[in-house]
Order: sequence, then structure tokens, then C-alpha cells
Amino acid sequence: MAKDLEVQEGGATAARDYQDPPPAPLFDMEELGKWSLYRAVIAEFVATLLFLYVSVLTVIGYKVQTDANAGGVDCGGVGILGIAWAFGGMIFVLVYCTAGISGTYSNVRVTFSLAKLGGHINPAVTVGLFLARKVSLVRTVLYIVAQCLGAICGCGLVKAFQSSYYTRYGGGANQLADGYNKGTGLGAEIIGTFVLVYTVFSATDPKRSARDSHIPVLAPLPIGFAVFMVHLATIPITGTGINPARSFGAAVIYNHEKAWDDQWIFWVGPMIGAAAAALYHQFVLRAAGIKSLGSFRSYA
Amino acid sequence: MAKDLEVQEGGATAARDYQDPPPAPLFDMEELGKWSLYRAVIAEFVATLLFLYVSVLTVIGYKVQTDANAGGVDCGGVGILGIAWAFGGMIFVLVYCTAGISGTYSNVRVTFSLAKLGGHINPAVTVGLFLARKVSLVRTVLYIVAQCLGAICGCGLVKAFQSSYYTRYGGGANQLADGYNKGTGLGAEIIGTFVLVYTVFSATDPKRSARDSHIPVLAPLPIGFAVFMVHLATIPITGTGINPARSFGAAVIYNHEKAWDDQWIFWVGPMIGAAAAALYHQFVLRAAGIKSLGSFRSYA
Amino acid sequence: MAKDLEVQEGGATAARDYQDPPPAPLFDMEELGKWSLYRAVIAEFVATLLFLYVSVLTVIGYKVQTDANAGGVDCGGVGILGIAWAFGGMIFVLVYCTAGISGTYSNVRVTFSLAKLGGHINPAVTVGLFLARKVSLVRTVLYIVAQCLGAICGCGLVKAFQSSYYTRYGGGANQLADGYNKGTGLGAEIIGTFVLVYTVFSATDPKRSARDSHIPVLAPLPIGFAVFMVHLATIPITGTGINPARSFGAAVIYNHEKAWDDQWIFWVGPMIGAAAAALYHQFVLRAAGIKSLGSFRSYA
Amino acid sequence: MAKDLEVQEGGATAARDYQDPPPAPLFDMEELGKWSLYRAVIAEFVATLLFLYVSVLTVIGYKVQTDANAGGVDCGGVGILGIAWAFGGMIFVLVYCTAGISGTYSNVRVTFSLAKLGGHINPAVTVGLFLARKVSLVRTVLYIVAQCLGAICGCGLVKAFQSSYYTRYGGGANQLADGYNKGTGLGAEIIGTFVLVYTVFSATDPKRSARDSHIPVLAPLPIGFAVFMVHLATIPITGTGINPARSFGAAVIYNHEKAWDDQWIFWVGPMIGAAAAALYHQFVLRAAGIKSLGSFRSYA
Repeated sequence: MAKDLEVQEGGATAARDYQDPPPAPLFDMEELGKWSLYRAVIAEFVATLLFLYVSVLTVIGYKVQTDANAGGVDCGGVGILGIAWAFGGMIFVLVYCTAGISGTYSNVRVTFSLAKLGGHINPAVTVGLFLARKVSLVRTVLYIVAQCLGAICGCGLVKAFQSSYYTRYGGGANQLADGYNKGTGLGAEIIGTFVLVYTVFSATDPKRSARDSHIPVLAPLPIGFAVFMVHLATIPITGTGINPARSFGAAVIYNHEKAWDDQWIFWVGPMIGAAAAALYHQFVLRAAGIKSLGSFRSYA
Repeated sequence: MAKDLEVQEGGATAARDYQDPPPAPLFDMEELGKWSLYRAVIAEFVATLLFLYVSVLTVIGYKVQTDANAGGVDCGGVGILGIAWAFGGMIFVLVYCTAGISGTYSNVRVTFSLAKLGGHINPAVTVGLFLARKVSLVRTVLYIVAQCLGAICGCGLVKAFQSSYYTRYGGGANQLADGYNKGTGLGAEIIGTFVLVYTVFSATDPKRSARDSHIPVLAPLPIGFAVFMVHLATIPITGTGINPARSFGAAVIYNHEKAWDDQWIFWVGPMIGAAAAALYHQFVLRAAGIKSLGSFRSYA
Repeated sequence: MAKDLEVQEGGATAARDYQDPPPAPLFDMEELGKWSLYRAVIAEFVATLLFLYVSVLTVIGYKVQTDANAGGVDCGGVGILGIAWAFGGMIFVLVYCTAGISGTYSNVRVTFSLAKLGGHINPAVTVGLFLARKVSLVRTVLYIVAQCLGAICGCGLVKAFQSSYYTRYGGGANQLADGYNKGTGLGAEIIGTFVLVYTVFSATDPKRSARDSHIPVLAPLPIGFAVFMVHLATIPITGTGINPARSFGAAVIYNHEKAWDDQWIFWVGPMIGAAAAALYHQFVLRAAGIKSLGSFRSYA
Repeated sequence: MAKDLEVQEGGATAARDYQDPPPAPLFDMEELGKWSLYRAVIAEFVATLLFLYVSVLTVIGYKVQTDANAGGVDCGGVGILGIAWAFGGMIFVLVYCTAGISGTYSNVRVTFSLAKLGGHINPAVTVGLFLARKVSLVRTVLYIVAQCLGAICGCGLVKAFQSSYYTRYGGGANQLADGYNKGTGLGAEIIGTFVLVYTVFSATDPKRSARDSHIPVLAPLPIGFAVFMVHLATIPITGTGINPARSFGAAVIYNHEKAWDDQWIFWVGPMIGAAAAALYHQFVLRAAGIKSLGSFRSYA
């Protein structure tokens, strides 16, 4: 009879040395009465604001630098590489700073649980964690609202600071580049978000935390790098969204038709990518997969 | 009756597993008799000197590289991206090296306390930590003096080494770029410093230290990245100060009117940003916020 | 009489504080009945797919950016530096994510054993670990098949997304640049792979793990950097393979004569490099070397 | 009466929780009979070979890329930023890999002692550690010989691989750029090496190791970054040596008069810089400073 055992790293059957937290409830009314929830929502707002502020400001600066007509330096700007760093590096910094703030989600203490690492700063990440039952529905909705508002404010600051350039250089809005069809854009957003949310799940796996308790500290680095990498690859196609709040905030402030026409791509794509990553992690890489193949196992 | 409990990561009420160090006294005369204070002041001086030396030398080299008249290579220089790395990377290295040296601040041993991580290398960081009562007033003043002297010496070295280019290429001084008004420059300095000091507070939070004791080692990396990021975004606007010692040292050695005219921006902005980050961390993210909302909590 | 002692870091003779896992068997039939094996094979497939997708997409984007005829931005693209980051950064992210998934290889639990860190994502790494008897032959073969299929699918996605550019810009295929002979290309692949596999062995050394148990988490960073570094150096010569699956997948999808003609270089070179690194690590740096010099030792 | 106490991080007087290893003997004949010494020497040779191979190959590739006459891509090469990464990143990887191999130096076991982190890969680092009595004279000499031979072989490989370009593009040799006098070059080498060796001392401080035992793993990162930073700043002046083996190996293979004429700068500068960093660390930052100011201390 197959017992509730787990194949450990070394392949031996052993009692688990970690504990999955209980699934987050869909509605947790008690949560609504806690300061920690509102503190987390404020932290999401501030982090997303800072994220958009720095990254879109870098984008606008880059465009000025490469436009000879604007007195750009032509060569020697930050380059698309610099833009990719701005997005990825800010995610590293802000996830690091916010982790543990927006993370509390249930009444049970799960030390080092990164499932709600906080610093989601991205509705796709929040939805991915919601689908894996790591955050409640209430928290999911509040986070997404806070993220979108933060993104709008961050872009608004850039517009205020770069008035003469903001609109001329596209406002950092995501839209499909010329020569690519909508299917390609959607595919790029799906895979890009898959890379990000797969990294988030890997970094926040309680199984991993049990083994090496210092992951909480290191997790933000690969998450930031995942964002950096995806930007390197897909800036030429969609400008790279993989974050509906980022795309929405920029569209609201830029407010041009093309940005709104393509907006759905930057919500549907990331949500599909996040769901795929959640499924992949929960059903292929984690125990769920083992259960469904029970008869296949040799250690019955 | 609400006890002195803390909402943990997992949301449970539990006794705190960390201890906030007592607030640093404003005047600590005993401190003046200790070698550790002077050692820390020397370390601040040396670190700020090295910081300005490497970063401003990189700036001047970049300008030569992009100036065809100076026999620049036109393309293929370090780029603005390289400048941003120079500032951010040096902060990473120097905070790493100096941490624990300029950090001692009271008579109580607080292992791993990063509050006085040392290696502030920046008056805005020192003032932020002072406002949060992490360093005494005496130490604050001595650090700032050491930082400013170090910055002047670092810039002096660059001028000595790059005599023919130093003045021609602006001496690495911070000033408002053409086309931006003073409000924008001030805003950019405020938000940029907020990002930096918010990261410093996050990295040096004793709550975090209690949970994962190796943060001291890792803290310098996100701090360095925060500096890197802000430079990517605001070099086109102000050259990026977010460090009054850096701006002051460059202005003293460069000594041109425009740099002095704008100098106040690079003191007022960072101080406001640092104060805002201190307030945000202490009153929103930390316990102070909980107390003020006591009646709001469900675990009374 | 020489006992089975080990010269520790400090040079003293002492009982080992770590344990080498037993060599993996060549054929481990029991392994074939375990879900953990198939889970690992799936993870290798997915990781290699994502690796090629992001890196080759970056390569194609770069070529568009530098081709004025294609409306490239001329300056300000990601540069060869960005390409090197794409390859190295993705390896960092994917090794981080996959570690511990494709790693289980025997019936003995060896906590933190990174020998089978998983996330090989590269047949040369798998063969190197096989030669050191860290993975079984069965696993070696299945991983390589999964890696090659993943690489083909990843490149296929890039072709589908970049139809108009993919073939025009070389499809990210590895081939010898003009002006270099086959011996140089082979040499560059050998040394490049040596650097990578040497890093993998260093990161996964159980001796090191015993001393500092958090290496598992950090190991992916230097491994990713090793890939980054080798790309900086040899992109101008071979485009940098050091990963037969990467070279094979690109050749299959690009399918031009030159890529196939040079293909052997990208299998023979990496395999020689991996074998050399395995020999160097096992016989020079580790205990094997001590044994063969027994009479030379002073602590008999 | 002042006891042998130590001001801890928190400022309290407490018994030290770490132990300084005893100074390494000048001549340790017993060491000559140990395999661990020769293993370390081989590891230094291999690491320095790989260091020069990757970094100089990157330099030559960069020069081709920026030379339109050589069919360079003009824009979009790795840039000077890429060169700086090649030097810094390789040091990170190789120190990481070699640490603990070339580190054994005495008969006493000092777990985690990074003083002899190994992977010096640089005579200036070895001399700095020798001056602080961390390595014996015998070991110092053997390391330096191995480093120089490794550097020659690494550059020889680059020449073999890049025959048509190697000499045309300066062979990666260090020499003073036009327009800078020898004093500037010497100063740049002194300060640059100071930054590097200061970082090495900080990373290998047993005081730090006692507090956070995972430093061994992280130490290579700031060390690599220190090298990266110094290259950003001083490539335009001297090409950046801060490593006599690197400068010597390139001069031997390039073998042009100017490289030999300036060679002394790249030995004298780094040695002065290393000595200054050793003095600064030992006498200002560490206990030595406390002793000399005994009467100044308040905790008598």
C-alpha cells in the first residue's frame, strides 16, 4: 500500500521534512479586519509605482538618447540592454524590499513561506499564486487594484517629469511592433509570463524552503533575472508586458488608440502564462503528479 | 486586551522572535571615547573617496569615448549603462567591505544588526538611519563630514589623473539637464533617494534579520542594485545625485557656477526622500503602524 | 600507515565531514519505474525549450537591431553583451528553477547533493556528471534526448514568431565564423565547455556542500556567469556552443548546409571539454589525486 | 586593566567569538611535502590560464567589432562594458571554483578561513595575504610563478586562436594610453589594486566568518565586482592591470617594446596598492589599531 511518502532529493522514500501550508480560503473575512492586509496592499501600491516610475523613465531616456533629432548622444545610451536591466533590476530590488510585507495571508504561521512572498508587483503573479491556492480571493482582488493604481501613478510621474518627451516617445506603453501578428504577441506574452511565474513558484516552493532556509533572501535575484531575460528577448516584439498592471498603467497615461487596441493581449497572455506555470508546477513538478501516477511507483 | 504581540509572516499572533535595538541616544558622550567610532569615520572617508574616484573616473572616460573630437571610439564605450553600473557596483562592493566597521553605535550588542550596516557612504542614508533613531547625532555629524571630505578627495584624484579632460567634460558634477525645471530635478532626487533608503531599511530591518541571519552578507547586493536602477532612470535628468556627499564633492572640485546653483537640489531632495522612506518604513510597514490602528485589529 | 583521512581546508588531517555519494550504477532498472525520473526528464525538456526560446529570440532581435536595412535602430540594441547575458542569465534562472527536480538519481538520500543538481539543460554537463559516476547511463541518455527535443521546440517557436527574420539572420545556429579554421573552433568549444563544467563540478562538490549547506541555492549564479563569460569571449569565433543540444536544435530548425557541416565541432568539442573538466576535478582537485601520490604525503 | 576583549558589532565588550589563525610561517618545509600545496599551485595555474584566455579573447573580439576596416559590426559589439564584465566575471567564477583548493596553508584547521580563499589568480592578492601573514613565503613564491606561467599560456592560446588579429589589436597588453604620464598610470594601478585587495581582506576576515558562516560562498561575488568596477574606471588610462601576472603574460606573448617599457608600472603599482590595503585592514580596521590606541579606549 502506497503511503504518504515523498521521494526525496536523493531518491529515498522518507517522511517529508516540509509542510505544505493549507490552501488559502477563497473568502477570508477575518483577513479583512487585519492591518497586515492593508499594509500589504499599500506596499503593493508603492512598489508598483516605483517599478513603473524607474522603468518607464529609463525607456523614455533611452528613446531620447537614440534620437539624433532630440540631440541624443546617438551612441552610448543605456541601450535596450539598459531597459531590460531597469525592469529586471527593479523587480529584484522591490521583491527583496517588499517580501514579507504583502505576504501574510492566513492565520497559520508558516515561517519562511514565500508562497506569498509579497512584492508580487504584478497581477499575473498574484493570479498564479491564487490559482495554486496560496492567496485568498479577497487578497488577490485588492492586490490587483493596488498594482494597477500604483502603475498609473508611476507612469503619471514620468509624464509629469518628461512632459516634452513622454508622448513623443510612446509613453513606455506596450504595443505590438510592426510586422508581428496578434498571435505572435500573445504567444510571446504567454511564454514570457510562464518563465516569470515558473521562477516565482520555484523560489517559493515550501519543499525548497525546508531544505535551505535562506531562500527567502535569495529568491528575489532569480525572479529579477527572469524579468530581465524575458525583456531581452521580447522587447522587439511587444515591448514586453508579462505584467498587466504595467501595461495598463502605461496605457492609461499614454492613452493612444493602438495601446488600447492591443491591451487585451497584455491581460490574456500573462494570465494564460501564469495559469500554465501554476499547472506545470503543481501537477508535473509537485506531489500532485505523483498521486496521479500511483500505480506507476515502485515504492508501493 | 491586546498584548504586545506581532503578526508574523504567516499571520499568526506570536511572541516576537526578534528584538528591536533600543533607540540610539541623540548625544552619546561615551561613544566619543571609543576607537570604534573613529575607525568607522575613517572607513566612511575611505569608502566615499573610492566611490567617487571610480564612478567619476568612469563618467569622464565615457565622455571621452563618445566625443569624436577627442578621438573617442564613438561606439563601444561603456555607455550610460556602464556609468550606472559604476555607481551601483561600487556601492555594492563598498557597503560589503565596510559593513560592520562603521556600524557599531551603542553599548548593546545586537548581533547582525544591520541598522548601522556601516558603509553608509551617503549622508542621505545616514540621516535616514538617524531619523529612525538607529545612529546617534554625534555619529551622524561625523559620518557626514567624513563622507564629504572623502568625496572631495576622490574627485580631486580624478581631476589630477584626467587633467586635460576633467573640466572639459563637466567633472562628473550633478546639475539639471537642459529642458528640465527645478521641480522635476527635485522630484527625481526625492524619489530616487526614497528607492535607495527604502532598500536600506528593508535590508537592515531587525525583524528580517531574526528570520534569516545571513542577510548581513546579502544586503549590499540589493542596495547596490537600487543605486544602479536609479541611475539608469535619472542620469538624463540630473546626472543622478541621491547622495549629497557625491554631489558636493564633485561641485567643490569642478567649481563651476551651474553646479553650485543647482547644489541645493542635491541636498534638499535626498533629505526629503530619506525622511519619507524612514517614515514609510517605521509607520506603515513596521509596528508603529499597528499600534495606531489598534482598535482595528481582530486579535485584540 | 596512511589512513583514509582527508586534508582539510586548514591542512590538518581529520576525518571527513562529508560523504561522497556512492557512484551511480550504469544501469539502474529500478529507476525506470519511478515518477521522479520522468518528472526530471520533462523538466529538462521544458527548461531547454525555454533556454533556446529566450536566447535565440534575443540573437535574432539583435541582428534586426544592427541591420540598418531592416529598419534597425543601429545603435542602442542589446549588443553582443546582451546576447551573452541572455545565454548566461537564462542558465542561472533555469538551473535555479530546475535544481532538485531532475536531480534524483539513486536510491540513497543525499541531502543537498548537487551532483545531480538537475537543470543540466546541456548534454555536455550531463555527460560530465555521468563520467564522474554521478548519474546513471539510463538517465544520461534520457536527459540528452529530452534536451535535444526541447532545443528543437524552442528554436521552432522562435522561427514561428520571427518568420520574416529567422532565416535571414542565421537562425541562431552555431557555425564557424569566416577566417577561423576548424581547429580553432574545436579548441574554443573545448576550453569554453571546460570552464562551464569545471564550474558545475565546483558548485556540486559534496565536500563543499558539507561545509556550507546553502551552496545549492547559490550554485546557479556562478554557473550562469560561466556561460555568460564564455559567450563574451567566443561569440566572434563560433557563436559559442558549449552545449550540443543548443547547437543541434538550432541546426535542425535553421537547416542550412554550413550549420550541419560544422555540427560535429559542437558535439566533439563540448564532450572533450566536459571529460577534461571531469578528469581535472576528480583526479587533480579531489581525493583521487591524493591516493596516487600517497608516498609523497607527509601525514602517513 | 584592559583585558583582551573586543568591541563587537553592537559595541559591547565581549569575548571574541572567532579566532584569528596563527600567522603563517615564512618558511614551512613540511608544507613542501604535501600534495595539497601542489594541487593548489596547479589550480592557480589553470585558473590564471582560463582568466587570461577568456578576458583577452574578449578584448581582441571587441577591437575587431569596433574596427570598420576589419568588417566590424561598428555598433553592437560587447563594448568596453563587456570587457569589464569579462575580467570581473571571470574572477567571480574562478575564485568561486578555486576557493578551498589553493587555500590550505598551514597545519591548523581553520574551517571557513577564507584568508587563503585560494583562487588568488593574482600576485598582488597573494602578496597582500603574505604581508598579512596569511600565507607562507614558499607558497607565495610558488603561486606567483604558477600565476605568471598560467597567464602566458592563456595569452598564448588567444594568439593561436586569433593569429590574424592578435598582434594587430595590441594583444590585450597593458600599456599607458597616450596623453597620460607615468605617475597617473602608477596612481591608477595603486588605487585600483587597493580596491581589489581591500575587498579580498573584507571577504576573508575571520571576524566576519565567525558571524556568518556562509561568506565563503558569497565572497567571490564582491571580489569579482571590485575587478569589474576598476576596469570600468581605468581601462581608458592603462587598460587596467591590477594583476601583475595578467600584465606580464600579455607582455610576453605580445612582446612589443611599449608593453615592456611600461611593465614596471604593472608590478610596482599593484604591489604598493596591495601593501596599502593590507596595512589599512590590519592596522586601521582590525585589532592592531585598537592595541595601539589602548589608552584611548573607554572600556579599560
